[in-house]
Amino acid sequence: MEKHKIAIIVGSHRKESVNRKVAQAMRTIAGDRLDCSIVEIGNLALFNQDIEADPPAEWTRFKQAIAAADGILFVTPEYNRSIPGALKNAIDVGSRPYGQSAWERKPAAIVTASPGGIGGFGANHQLRQACVFLDMPVMQQPEAYLGHVTDKSFGEDGSLTDPGLAKLVGSIAKAFADWVGLIKSGRAALARDSAHIG
Amino acid sequence: MEKHKIAIIVGSHRKESVNRKVAQAMRTIAGDRLDCSIVEIGNLALFNQDIEADPPAEWTRFKQAIAAADGILFVTPEYNRSIPGALKNAIDVGSRPYGQSAWERKPAAIVTASPGGIGGFGANHQLRQACVFLDMPVMQQPEAYLGHVTDKSFGEDGSLTDPGLAKLVGSIAKAFADWVGLIKSGRAALARDSAHIG
Amino acid sequence: MEKHKIAIIVGSHRKESVNRKVAQAMRTIAGDRLDCSIVEIGNLALFNQDIEADPPAEWTRFKQAIAAADGILFVTPEYNRSIPGALKNAIDVGSRPYGQSAWERKPAAIVTASPGGIGGFGANHQLRQACVFLDMPVMQQPEAYLGHVTDKSFGEDGSLTDPGLAKLVGSIAKAFADWVGLIKSGRAALARDSAHIG
Amino acid sequence: MEKHKIAIIVGSHRKESVNRKVAQAMRTIAGDRLDCSIVEIGNLALFNQDIEADPPAEWTRFKQAIAAADGILFVTPEYNRSIPGALKNAIDVGSRPYGQSAWERKPAAIVTASPGGIGGFGANHQLRQACVFLDMPVMQQPEAYLGHVTDKSFGEDGSLTDPGLAKLVGSIAKAFADWVGLIKSGRAALARDSAHIG
Repeated sequence: MEKHKIAIIVGSHRKESVNRKVAQAMRTIAGDRLDCSIVEIGNLALFNQDIEADPPAEWTRFKQAIAAADGILFVTPEYNRSIPGALKNAIDVGSRPYGQSAWERKPAAIVTASPGGIGGFGANHQLRQACVFLDMPVMQQPEAYLGHVTDKSFGEDGSLTDPGLAKLVGSIAKAFADWVGLIKSGRAALARDSAHIG
Repeated sequence: MEKHKIAIIVGSHRKESVNRKVAQAMRTIAGDRLDCSIVEIGNLALFNQDIEADPPAEWTRFKQAIAAADGILFVTPEYNRSIPGALKNAIDVGSRPYGQSAWERKPAAIVTASPGGIGGFGANHQLRQACVFLDMPVMQQPEAYLGHVTDKSFGEDGSLTDPGLAKLVGSIAKAFADWVGLIKSGRAALARDSAHIG
Repeated sequence: MEKHKIAIIVGSHRKESVNRKVAQAMRTIAGDRLDCSIVEIGNLALFNQDIEADPPAEWTRFKQAIAAADGILFVTPEYNRSIPGALKNAIDVGSRPYGQSAWERKPAAIVTASPGGIGGFGANHQLRQACVFLDMPVMQQPEAYLGHVTDKSFGEDGSLTDPGLAKLVGSIAKAFADWVGLIKSGRAALARDSAHIG
Repeated sequence: MEKHKIAIIVGSHRKESVNRKVAQAMRTIAGDRLDCSIVEIGNLALFNQDIEADPPAEWTRFKQAIAAADGILFVTPEYNRSIPGALKNAIDVGSRPYGQSAWERKPAAIVTASPGGIGGFGANHQLRQACVFLDMPVMQQPEAYLGHVTDKSFGEDGSLTDPGLAKLVGSIAKAFADWVGLIKSGRAALARDSAHIG
C-alpha cells in the first residue's frame, strides 16, 4: 500500500519541546502507512504583504515543502490560549499570495500537547478555524488534546514511555492515515463520477 | 445517480424566518442531487439527563430522523454571537445518551444567514466546534456566512430573487452534494482496503 | 459593607448536577460579600421571536430576576464542546426584544465544571463570546475551568470535600466579589467625572 | 483631566496598512483623553523559550513599552480567520517569562478592520480568548468589526473621509477612554476598601 507523504509542523521550536517529541513518536508509530517529515518554521521571517511578490528564499522553500505533501499534521503547544505566533506566521506565509495558498485541499490533523490538563484545547480550535478558510479538511476524531505531557512521558531515546499516551498517539496516527486515504479516495471517486456525467 | 438523503435543521422557528427560506431555496436548487427534508426542532423539550433513559417521544422521533439521513445541513441565524438555544438543544438531544449519538459520522454543512454584514460567523464557528466532538466531517469551502439577507432577498413564492445570493446558495448546494459523496465514497474505499488487508 | 446581589444561572437542570453543587458551594463560601440566588431556567419555553411581543409569564419572571441582580454568575457543564442548549436558550430569552436585554452591563463570571480534565473550556469561551455582544464585562482571572469534578468532590451536605477544588472555588468567589465591586465603583466614578465636565 | 497612556499595537506591518491608518485616526480623534503611541512589532524575533532568559534587546524594549502603558489598543486585520502571526508573536513575547508578563491587568480594546464585510470577527474573538489568560479586561461594547475598510476610506492626509466609519471610530475611542478610566477608578476604590478592612 502506498504511503501518504505527510508534512509535520511543530508549533514550538524549543529544542526540548515535548510537542516535537510527540511528533517524532507519531512518525515512528505511523511509519508503515505515513512517510512523515518535519518542516521547520523557526527560520521564517514575519509575514509582510509588502514583500510577498519578492519573497525570502525560506518562504518559497517552506511553501514547496507544504505543496509536496499529501497531508499536514500540526503538533503544537498552546501559547496564551491560542496558536503560537511562530506557527500562525507559518500558516500566513504558506497561504499567500492570494490564490496561491500551499495549504489548499490538504487533509490535516491537529494535535495539541501541554503539561497542564487542558491539553491545548484553545489552540486546537483556533487552528481549526483557520483551516476552514484554508480549505483543509481536518480530522474530527479522535480529538487530540494531550494533557499532562512532560519530559517524563518519554524515554531517553525519545520513545513514549507513558502507556496511556502511547496508545492514544497510536490511535491518532492510525485514524489520520485513514483520514488522508479517505479524502484521496473520495476525491478520486468524485472526479470519476464527474467525468462520467460529462 | 443516487440522491443523498439530507436532514435540514433550521435554527430559527420563527414563521417567516429568512433561514427557513434559505433552506427551502437550497432544497429546490439541489433537487437533482439531494433529497432534503426539514426536521423540526421547535417541539423538543429542553435536554435533561435525568429523563434520557425514558425520553419524550419527540426526542426519539428527532433522533430517528437524524439517524436516517446521509448528511446534515444546518441553516441558522446567529443569536447573541452564538448558536440559537433551540438549535443547541436539538444537538444535545440528538447526541445522547452517551454512545448513542445520532450525529456520529454524518457529513455536514453549516450555513448561517443574517440581515447584518457578518452573516452569522460567530454561530457558524461555534457550531463547527461542536461538530468536532460529534465526529461530523463539516464542509470547509465555500464558507457560508450569508450577510444582508432579508425578506427582500426572496420573491413571494419564496424563490431567491437576489442574484448574488442565488449564485452563492447554488454553489454551496453543489459543493455540499460533492462533499457528502466524497465522504461516502472515501469510506467505502477505506472499508474495501481494510477487507483486503484482513 | 453592602453585599452584591448575584443571580446564579446553572447550565444543567439535572437534579444531582455537580455544577449545581459548585453553585451552592460558591454561594456559601461567598456569603459575607455576595447575596446569591439561583435563577431557574428549566421551565423557559424555547425562544421564538414570533411570541416575544406577548411573552410567556416565565420569560418575564426570568428577565425580572436577571434585571434585579448586580451581577451574574454562570456555572455550567459543557455539552458537546459548547454551551448547553437550555443555558443558551435562557440567554436568548433574557436578551430580547431588541433593546430590552436584561443582561446589559451586568458584570459576570463564568465557571465551568466537568468530570473530565478539560473543565468545560469550550463552553466557557463560547459563553464569553456571547457576553461581548450582551455588553457584560466578564471577569478574566482566575479562569475557572474546573476539571475532574464528580459527586465524590462533595460531602453528603453538599460541601466541597476536595481541598484543592475548595480553595480554587474560594478564590473565584473572592475575585468575583472584587470584580462586581470594581465595575460598580468604576462606573460611579465615571458618572461623577462626566457630571463635572458637564 | 489626566490623559491615559495607550500603547497601540497594529497587527499588520504593511506600509499602507488600513489598520495602521485606523490606528492613526483613532489617535487623533481621542487626542484630548488618550495619549497614544504605536509600539512596533515587526522587528521582534519569533518567540523561543530557549532564549527567554537572555532575550534579544527588541523583546526587552517591547515589554518595557507595554509595561509603561495604562491600556492597550489592538488594531489588526484578520489573516486566515485568525490573528496575524506577527501580532500573536508580539503577544507571546510580551507574556514571558512565566510570571513576568507585561500585559497583566492592562485594560484593552480590540479593533479589527478589513476590506470585506465580516470586519475581522474571527481574529477579534481569538484575540479576546488570549486576553482572558493574560488577565486583560477587554472592552465589550461597542464591538469593533470594521468592514469594507479600504484605502478609499481615508483622505490623502490619512484622515477618515468615510463619515459612517469616522463616527464609529469616534464612538470606539470615547468608549475606550471611559473603559480605561473605569478600570483605573474601580481598582483604586477596591484598594481603598481593602485598606479600610485591614
